[in-house]
Amino acid sequence: MSLSSEEHPQPAFGWAARDSSGLLSPFNFSRRVNGENDITIKIFYCGICHTDLHFIRNAWNSSSYPMVPGHEIVGIVTQVGSKVQKFKAGDKAAVGCVVGACHACPNCEQSLEIYCSKSILTYNSTNLDGTRNHGGYSDNLVVNERYAVLFPETLPMDSGAPLMCAGITVYSPMKYFGLSEPGKHVGVVGLGGLGHVAVKFAKAFGVKVTVISTSPAKQQEAIHKFGADSFLVSTDEGQIQAAVDSMDGILDTVSGVHSISPLISLLKAHGKLILLGAPEKPFELPVFPLLMGRKMVVGSACGGMKETQEMIDFAGKHNITADIELISMDYVNTAMERLARGDVRYRFVIDIANTLLPLAHP
Amino acid sequence: MSLSSEEHPQPAFGWAARDSSGLLSPFNFSRRVNGENDITIKIFYCGICHTDLHFIRNAWNSSSYPMVPGHEIVGIVTQVGSKVQKFKAGDKAAVGCVVGACHACPNCEQSLEIYCSKSILTYNSTNLDGTRNHGGYSDNLVVNERYAVLFPETLPMDSGAPLMCAGITVYSPMKYFGLSEPGKHVGVVGLGGLGHVAVKFAKAFGVKVTVISTSPAKQQEAIHKFGADSFLVSTDEGQIQAAVDSMDGILDTVSGVHSISPLISLLKAHGKLILLGAPEKPFELPVFPLLMGRKMVVGSACGGMKETQEMIDFAGKHNITADIELISMDYVNTAMERLARGDVRYRFVIDIANTLLPLAHP
Repeated sequence: MSLSSEEHPQPAFGWAARDSSGLLSPFNFSRRVNGENDITIKIFYCGICHTDLHFIRNAWNSSSYPMVPGHEIVGIVTQVGSKVQKFKAGDKAAVGCVVGACHACPNCEQSLEIYCSKSILTYNSTNLDGTRNHGGYSDNLVVNERYAVLFPETLPMDSGAPLMCAGITVYSPMKYFGLSEPGKHVGVVGLGGLGHVAVKFAKAFGVKVTVISTSPAKQQEAIHKFGADSFLVSTDEGQIQAAVDSMDGILDTVSGVHSISPLISLLKAHGKLILLGAPEKPFELPVFPLLMGRKMVVGSACGGMKETQEMIDFAGKHNITADIELISMDYVNTAMERLARGDVRYRFVIDIANTLLPLAHP
Repeated sequence: MSLSSEEHPQPAFGWAARDSSGLLSPFNFSRRVNGENDITIKIFYCGICHTDLHFIRNAWNSSSYPMVPGHEIVGIVTQVGSKVQKFKAGDKAAVGCVVGACHACPNCEQSLEIYCSKSILTYNSTNLDGTRNHGGYSDNLVVNERYAVLFPETLPMDSGAPLMCAGITVYSPMKYFGLSEPGKHVGVVGLGGLGHVAVKFAKAFGVKVTVISTSPAKQQEAIHKFGADSFLVSTDEGQIQAAVDSMDGILDTVSGVHSISPLISLLKAHGKLILLGAPEKPFELPVFPLLMGRKMVVGSACGGMKETQEMIDFAGKHNITADIELISMDYVNTAMERLARGDVRYRFVIDIANTLLPLAHP
């Protein structure tokens, strides 16, 4: 087996997890040569997604090490292949959760590449040439231009980075399931990295938003900072009862194990409960409430590339960014610990360009 | 409390369950006077739905006694109110699961009355005047014409009766979720009362159908009798694996507790698992497979009145009926026992007109 740093011609440097302890440390590796459809991005910022934490700690028994995580990537294009159409050197570009797919199946035809059965995730996945790929906690990325979006000039690169996962993850299902239409009432469960962005997009769509949380303390922020129309404490049965049958859809952003029965009761007939987090245990699904209201429980993961470009353009137009805490690369292990206990408002973003200090490339 | 036989002016006679033993016995009661929007139907046939068995035995802790079950009703109109437009005396009419709703909410506006939060079920429900209503194991029914459909002349009344619940329960979600379109591949779990009708409708729509069953013995009938394209034994992991990612939707007609994980794996991305049975325990819902394919789990119950008329017209045009065993009224308790152990191919229908022998009305 070749050394990661020798697999490909283009040197790269980042921080990698080495085992399921999840501890990250400096790592020399390499990227493929920039192909005719590829662009190379000098990475400026990378958000820390909760998925990164799950992956580095092998929460889903699917992790392979060493692993450079990161799929909320924003930077500047430094090189473009001969067939590249969308980018030129110097453009701001951003990459999210997916970097490859078959380009032939019905999902790819609709630019829903993330749902292609051959989709290649941005890290902890295998490239077409059989090598493992690596994410954005690193200095550069080589990617097929299909999987990069033009990043709006008006949007800050640091607080815009989390939109490439958190943003599209909430935007895509709201659009796909018709929850972005005027007059709709959307619930958002959990006011974390995804939840606070969901509230911002929903308000920009002009729909009514209710934040649903176990923490009464978040009411103030939900309403006054992010503009939610109302707030429900999910453990308060009286509040739940008063809101039964009132919502067209609910975005459930919570990864921890929790009961979905009260959430289903909040939905109108034909309402949609959209699961965005992945608890480690299955949910208990009561059937009667689904039958009685033709209600749906559905999962959704990031989004396709066409809608990711739409999302970031919409964010640029409406000044939607994440509320972030900008950190240096060497703070990442502390950040992961804080993330694990929910101590972040609302997203960590790593200042790659200024704080990823290179080791000597081999 | 008034006697059931004295509540209303119009005498009626049927068989009722008296307690959660579920045993049915002759019962004198009464129907409301035929109002200006009502029709009175002399009942000829009534199918036995699995729901009837659940209700008479109080499986869902919601039963009230005495209870005359039955919501697969076909008969002849004997009286019409002054404002009735759709029917005249002598017409064949059929009634299904629902006999009232608010007529003002978004669901009612779309003629999805069954999903109205104020819908009145055909039996074990409460009428607008506060009296309990009763179903079709009886000699007559008074019903608002909105809740009756014109029964096609070409369709046999006995084997057509089960379409009023089993038929619309499978037809409605196939139409609503786009599974009736050419090129789709639909799975049908369970080849019972609902399942065998689902196969017939799906074939009439022109879609590909795979029957999924725990009983290899049903393969012959599924394919050669009902025209299914293929057959999967749900406990055979090899067969499941070979069909992974192949179906656009699955109608799960099974009421017993079972695992839905293998079914979810059979769905393509964006596929829909439609639950039609109501197991007594919640399902275990794995989240990852939903996320990874934006798959949906949804419940569906009967259908609205507009689509029920469409369904029965479609059945008339395509000669779709249920395969039935016609029984006499006094066989009903034996039939219930047989139904409880799955010993029916594929639907019992009670020959009301010929075998419901009246007691003297009080």
